[in-house]
Amino acid sequence: MTMQAADVRAYDHQALVAFSVETLAAAGLPEAQARIAAAGLAYADLHGFDSHGAINLARIYLPKVHDGAIARDGVPGVVRAQGATVRIAGRRAIGFVSAAFAMDQACRLARAHGIGCAAVDGLTHSGSMGFYVKTAVDDGLIGLALINLGSQALVPAPGSTTPLVGTNVVAAGVPAGDLPPFLLDMSTAAVSTGRVRLAARRDEPIPAGWLADAEGRDVTDPRALDAGTAFLLPLGGQASGYKGLGLALLCDLLCAALSGAAAGPVGATASDENIGLVLIAIDPKALRSMDAFREAVDQILSAVLAVDTTDPDTPVVYPGYREAMTARHRQTHGIPLDGATVASLVEAGERVGVAFPAAR
Amino acid sequence: MTMQAADVRAYDHQALVAFSVETLAAAGLPEAQARIAAAGLAYADLHGFDSHGAINLARIYLPKVHDGAIARDGVPGVVRAQGATVRIAGRRAIGFVSAAFAMDQACRLARAHGIGCAAVDGLTHSGSMGFYVKTAVDDGLIGLALINLGSQALVPAPGSTTPLVGTNVVAAGVPAGDLPPFLLDMSTAAVSTGRVRLAARRDEPIPAGWLADAEGRDVTDPRALDAGTAFLLPLGGQASGYKGLGLALLCDLLCAALSGAAAGPVGATASDENIGLVLIAIDPKALRSMDAFREAVDQILSAVLAVDTTDPDTPVVYPGYREAMTARHRQTHGIPLDGATVASLVEAGERVGVAFPAAR
Repeated sequence: MTMQAADVRAYDHQALVAFSVETLAAAGLPEAQARIAAAGLAYADLHGFDSHGAINLARIYLPKVHDGAIARDGVPGVVRAQGATVRIAGRRAIGFVSAAFAMDQACRLARAHGIGCAAVDGLTHSGSMGFYVKTAVDDGLIGLALINLGSQALVPAPGSTTPLVGTNVVAAGVPAGDLPPFLLDMSTAAVSTGRVRLAARRDEPIPAGWLADAEGRDVTDPRALDAGTAFLLPLGGQASGYKGLGLALLCDLLCAALSGAAAGPVGATASDENIGLVLIAIDPKALRSMDAFREAVDQILSAVLAVDTTDPDTPVVYPGYREAMTARHRQTHGIPLDGATVASLVEAGERVGVAFPAAR
Repeated sequence: MTMQAADVRAYDHQALVAFSVETLAAAGLPEAQARIAAAGLAYADLHGFDSHGAINLARIYLPKVHDGAIARDGVPGVVRAQGATVRIAGRRAIGFVSAAFAMDQACRLARAHGIGCAAVDGLTHSGSMGFYVKTAVDDGLIGLALINLGSQALVPAPGSTTPLVGTNVVAAGVPAGDLPPFLLDMSTAAVSTGRVRLAARRDEPIPAGWLADAEGRDVTDPRALDAGTAFLLPLGGQASGYKGLGLALLCDLLCAALSGAAAGPVGATASDENIGLVLIAIDPKALRSMDAFREAVDQILSAVLAVDTTDPDTPVVYPGYREAMTARHRQTHGIPLDGATVASLVEAGERVGVAFPAAR
């Protein structure tokens, strides 16, 4: 997903973090909250999730802080704690803050009980789920995350053209030994809206299996999504989409029914109010020695990296591997941003009197 | 998946249970174990998972008891218990017994701690995962199951023709209010081998997106799977198969690394020795009132059932709904078995001196 366009320039990731913190704080967010949000944006930018990084500062977060959809005085809090579980009110705080708080709680419970679970309602947009499961992984824990889109529905069931579920996400992180950790962060739709829109901006066709028209035919023109003439397919597409729909519904059921959040199938809207999140952390040490665990993980992951491919230039990798390589590269060489993204950030900064950094 | 062939006849499900118990006991399994296995087979037959019911008594379980791959004296046991987690040795007992024991432990821990986790190694073939998650659901708990195929690999990564992972399964059950519970039980491959073989027996083509040849082209002849000229695709097929592969690897990582079981990527073999299983149970009552939880689940599920479809004769349903209707019907009208399946069961019964029941 590295950008190829001619107007792409690289920006120092620490400079982007400082810009995120300053603009969010200038818009009225407490600085401690701005720092957590900036770290979440930087995670996405560093690891190559370009649709979830700084671009969203101008597209989502600053506008929502300005218009009050993100509550400047929102502070997430525990509303119920029992055994190894906790229910958290997100209270429309910026999603990064509520989700990071919830993952800290799940990890604390996992260290105490071997496994811990946090359910959150009242969440706003929370960026890449990989940011939170990596928190668990960096702590030597397994992290699992299910999130819905509140009441926003984008993906119809197979055989229907009525959007029913969001591009709900399943994410998981597993700590390894010497290898980069396993980090899965996937929409339960065939593809994220971000990747379709990226193809539209680049004027590139998309593979069959991502979008279908009202008659169920494959659509390979990415512009058809925002034109409303094609629908996102659930993971599995025409042949196995009932599985992707099942995973999306599992997200809605757990995220909404355990926490009180909204859910796509119920009163589907175009906005992502009252998002729900369920996080589970597991301490491998409760079940087995950490050395044995890490060794077994490395055995599996290194076997994946060693598998034969039909094209020797395209090795098989596991989720998280390429992202770790990207992060290493971008830490040194900067974050590539295209001209349109930079222009939107410059403008967003001007609104609150913060200058966008120069390219490297 | 109701069988259409002319030689299909219906058999009383209690008579099939009795036959399963008697043949397994006659083959040397303790009767208490035979009863649990028979209940697992009956679950699959009643709920329409025809590839995982009585047919497997002759195809898998009795042969494995006879040849010792299933240990007649195998008794699963807890080898480590810490907080809300437990590690269980399956000790090659018949898989139904180890998996049911593990789900009971996970449920017990969930009632005590709000969430519980059991990891099992040394498991043998365990039937439908829905059987175990439904145990949790019947207890008012959420049940999650991840299982691998031990060291058996069947599904290559996209871009490779070397089988790397098993048709690893993700299953989940969520208790509802008045509606049948949500019960997802899905292979992380585009399709289960059972469905491809069923199409081959019926001489029916399969949809594009299930199988591909070595050049990555779609294959719609189901016989190509066992002929070795086509490979199972991961869920997501050509366009999004990296997601299905990610889910399959998550199963291998958790099931093997937490428990000590084997994993597909490591020394892939054709046999399913030393299967691993991870079960998680969550008590909704720990997080929220059970009434509020069940009501929220019913709201979501009834919204799914009410969604518009392009073909009004094919309503959208959620995972578990059609299976509940099938179970209700088969409880009264019997389990449909085709002639070839019946012949294999008659023969398996004769080997241990147990007569197969007459059709209804």
